[in-house]
Amino acid sequence: MGNELIKGCPSTSGDDYQLNTITLLRHAARSFPEQEVVSRSMDGSIRRSDYGQTYERVKRMSNALENLGVKPGDRVGVMGWNTHRFFELYFAISGMGAVLLQLNPRIAADHLTHVINHSQAKIICIAETMAPIIENVAPNLKTVEGYVILTDSPISEVKSKLSPKSGYEEILQAASPEREWAMIDERSAYSACYTTGTTGMPKGVYYSHRDIYLHTMEFAHLGQISMNDTVMQIVPMFHAQGWGVFFIGPMVGARLVLPGRYTLEDPSSLVDLLVTEKVTVSCGAPAIFMPMLQYIQKMPEKPDLTGLRMFSGATEPPLSMMKGFWDLGKAEIIHAYGATETTPLVTCNLLKPSLKNMPIEEQWELRKKQGLPVVGIDVRIADPEGKEQPHDGKSVGELWVKGPWITASYYDDERSTESFQDGYWKSGDAATMDENGYIKIADRIKDVIKSGGEWISSIDLENTLMGHPQVQEAAVVGIDHPKWEERPLALVVLREEGRGKVAKEDIYSFLAEKFPKWQLPDDILMVDEIPKTSVGKFSKKDMREQYKTYYQ
Amino acid sequence: MGNELIKGCPSTSGDDYQLNTITLLRHAARSFPEQEVVSRSMDGSIRRSDYGQTYERVKRMSNALENLGVKPGDRVGVMGWNTHRFFELYFAISGMGAVLLQLNPRIAADHLTHVINHSQAKIICIAETMAPIIENVAPNLKTVEGYVILTDSPISEVKSKLSPKSGYEEILQAASPEREWAMIDERSAYSACYTTGTTGMPKGVYYSHRDIYLHTMEFAHLGQISMNDTVMQIVPMFHAQGWGVFFIGPMVGARLVLPGRYTLEDPSSLVDLLVTEKVTVSCGAPAIFMPMLQYIQKMPEKPDLTGLRMFSGATEPPLSMMKGFWDLGKAEIIHAYGATETTPLVTCNLLKPSLKNMPIEEQWELRKKQGLPVVGIDVRIADPEGKEQPHDGKSVGELWVKGPWITASYYDDERSTESFQDGYWKSGDAATMDENGYIKIADRIKDVIKSGGEWISSIDLENTLMGHPQVQEAAVVGIDHPKWEERPLALVVLREEGRGKVAKEDIYSFLAEKFPKWQLPDDILMVDEIPKTSVGKFSKKDMREQYKTYYQ
Repeated sequence: MGNELIKGCPSTSGDDYQLNTITLLRHAARSFPEQEVVSRSMDGSIRRSDYGQTYERVKRMSNALENLGVKPGDRVGVMGWNTHRFFELYFAISGMGAVLLQLNPRIAADHLTHVINHSQAKIICIAETMAPIIENVAPNLKTVEGYVILTDSPISEVKSKLSPKSGYEEILQAASPEREWAMIDERSAYSACYTTGTTGMPKGVYYSHRDIYLHTMEFAHLGQISMNDTVMQIVPMFHAQGWGVFFIGPMVGARLVLPGRYTLEDPSSLVDLLVTEKVTVSCGAPAIFMPMLQYIQKMPEKPDLTGLRMFSGATEPPLSMMKGFWDLGKAEIIHAYGATETTPLVTCNLLKPSLKNMPIEEQWELRKKQGLPVVGIDVRIADPEGKEQPHDGKSVGELWVKGPWITASYYDDERSTESFQDGYWKSGDAATMDENGYIKIADRIKDVIKSGGEWISSIDLENTLMGHPQVQEAAVVGIDHPKWEERPLALVVLREEGRGKVAKEDIYSFLAEKFPKWQLPDDILMVDEIPKTSVGKFSKKDMREQYKTYYQ
Repeated sequence: MGNELIKGCPSTSGDDYQLNTITLLRHAARSFPEQEVVSRSMDGSIRRSDYGQTYERVKRMSNALENLGVKPGDRVGVMGWNTHRFFELYFAISGMGAVLLQLNPRIAADHLTHVINHSQAKIICIAETMAPIIENVAPNLKTVEGYVILTDSPISEVKSKLSPKSGYEEILQAASPEREWAMIDERSAYSACYTTGTTGMPKGVYYSHRDIYLHTMEFAHLGQISMNDTVMQIVPMFHAQGWGVFFIGPMVGARLVLPGRYTLEDPSSLVDLLVTEKVTVSCGAPAIFMPMLQYIQKMPEKPDLTGLRMFSGATEPPLSMMKGFWDLGKAEIIHAYGATETTPLVTCNLLKPSLKNMPIEEQWELRKKQGLPVVGIDVRIADPEGKEQPHDGKSVGELWVKGPWITASYYDDERSTESFQDGYWKSGDAATMDENGYIKIADRIKDVIKSGGEWISSIDLENTLMGHPQVQEAAVVGIDHPKWEERPLALVVLREEGRGKVAKEDIYSFLAEKFPKWQLPDDILMVDEIPKTSVGKFSKKDMREQYKTYYQ
């Protein structure tokens, strides 16, 4: 759709009625007050509440924040686990027109300081166990006027040096349970999340109420999530508002499970909740779903996960993971794609009715793709001039995205100009769209390998290499080549047990089963370590620099 | 939510991206071009097309309308059956920013004239078989510049006197298939429907793009309608845009079935399509679902309707109808409530998980209620001062509604002031809300019978009376009473076979099984006919007038 705006005949509809996130919780409290909200505490005990009680606590908390001096438009930082208090804050802060600033506990201290100062956060709400992270940066915070500690303990027993500090429960209980919600301009920010790039300070994405409301409706419809579902919030609530799973719960009247603290190393608490609470919907990524599956596969008695749908983001889901869950009662891994800048839903991989007769192995392959663009979002597979590429499954272009829940700039940031064109956000991802409309992300656009006019996906090579049982990690980059422009080079780290036993030739023959010869790396180097960035991602920039002349 | 508007911090979201109805069809053409659109022609033959071809025809038709001089904001009237051409017009007209004026072929000529003149329609598109209805009023139309005939025949063979006239297919084929869509301000009207009250000329409801888009998303989510469904458009597309079923189709990528012309007297074509096209979702009302069921029950071989969900509006669905469909493979009748003013979805009756253990007969009773308010819509059960009544299933108030798809006024109409208060549309329906949040419409507010401080539902009495096998029709009104303020009086028309055989006492004992004694009518009159309005509804006003002093 073009960007030119035309006005037609005025309507008589209630167009002034604003899309506000609090409406979703008001609805749950009106029609589903008895529906359970299950939250796992730090000590592993299970707290059972419901939407009715949650709504009362949200009203109190909103009043409590006002008592602390928070006003519409103010930013309130939150750093916490996926608990009922974080859930309440999402509504308490945004319901009064303030902005929930999502704070990622894992980013570097200077980045965290930047995020809090850049957003001018007034109050920081922080889980007791995470308080040291904020204490570490507190002396450098310029706008913060106070701290609220999320804890089960009385504030008098909390040993944090943060000051002035109040206890979440104390200020909540002291506040009135009565609250009338004013209508908030739907274009006002409801939350903010800063995204960490490979260079420079994090960039701010400020989601509007309208954005979140529409995204929630779309996700509920696409996922066919209903009041008969139990949804578990696995994606951290400090990251792209955890994909908004906790909004879908109240909107559709589903049971909600908040797993509290968990780690990738020990997925037992997540699996435990999945089984005992009979979870039917969740969102996550292979980084957590894979350990969950491995944990389940070692259980003496396999659970029946019939009816479970797990929306998996981040990267292409490994086949072994998809099939592994499928074997536990046809539990479905549904791949979806997005980013902090996109709220996040951009594509979702559901099998079209017209493809139901496709041979089953082809279906599995298809379902690894990023999927069909969701309704309401415009996409473009753009060549460097911004021209749409053919939808043939081969022609690669950068994926551009626009729509009501796609960010249109970075908050107060000069770098915005680089990332937007014709109203689209330029994702930086290199993609194809096939004849059936399915998008596949092949690479980061800057990592695409161009060889003799053709194009090779470093990600496909890496994913295949990582599927080798003796490979611990692998990265592939394009290196300048005198004849072909670029040729792939693979760096492979073997598992300890494979070292000295697996030869370069073994890896080549493993790759040769899946790729045509011209796509195979010209060399495969066995290394002890792959260069990484400060946040632990492969640093392809460093690799390209290091091996710049390797093929000369 | 209050009406005060507060602005918070600006967001970075794509809030300028407008919700436009054409986006729904663009999505279908992008991701589901192969999905079938089935349309039944006037001669009963089946036309099979798909979203890809439909989209091309819509682009041509939009260009064709522009060629006829239609501009953004102009009104284009459409009177037709539920066919592919009507479907195309919904997108072709609104896609260019013009307004589709829904013309009801069943209203009186002076009303029809008023609707067309009041809306200042420029072009009228009319099904060939309906042309005489427009010919009849054409001399009185003040703004119409031309007519487009929807027909399979060449325009040269169409014998209508309408002038100037063009053939739909001819102008479509002559127009370019290339079209760029400008973005339309989402508050612009996308269609208009005039609602017929009991007095005065019809009142205009002008739906915005935003209204329709949000309503479609909500209906898709609530109905859990997906690309695996086949949806049939039973509700006439000239009435509250047929509940928007044909928007849900493209939005979710479902198969769409357009049944063309059908009558309440002969539901065979609908049943035929239901079975042969394996329809899974439809919307309608008991007035058509009941004859369909009766037709099916007489079929020598009963069809298996497993998986069918039928959303039923208008009135409380009779138990026999709900159970009748349920017996054909657990086909579900789902009651939903709304009006022209509400797009129409206000409530929908889905059984909450917390009520799944309710005894089965109580569940059936519950499911006759109008149901839970849908998310995003505010309701109030208002006493005459506008104060919310208790949600106890007993306290009656007028149902007030507000939200993004509820009309906020009537178009250019002084009568608007009577129907709106505090941002709410006053429905005129008397309702209760029970402890579980389910709304029940008990009566029209003006038909409520007040007896000794208590309240009696004329609708409940009528529905029960009509359930008597020998009763053809029945109406109940409240008549002034010296002691009790008002007391109910029933008028009953017996079926021919029952006349002379069924006595007043039989009717009393039939009613006495379901109602407490104080709610029974003080008298039941066997009459030949019940006074009706010009559109065939009971005229309770006339009845009250006629029997004004009956209890004195």
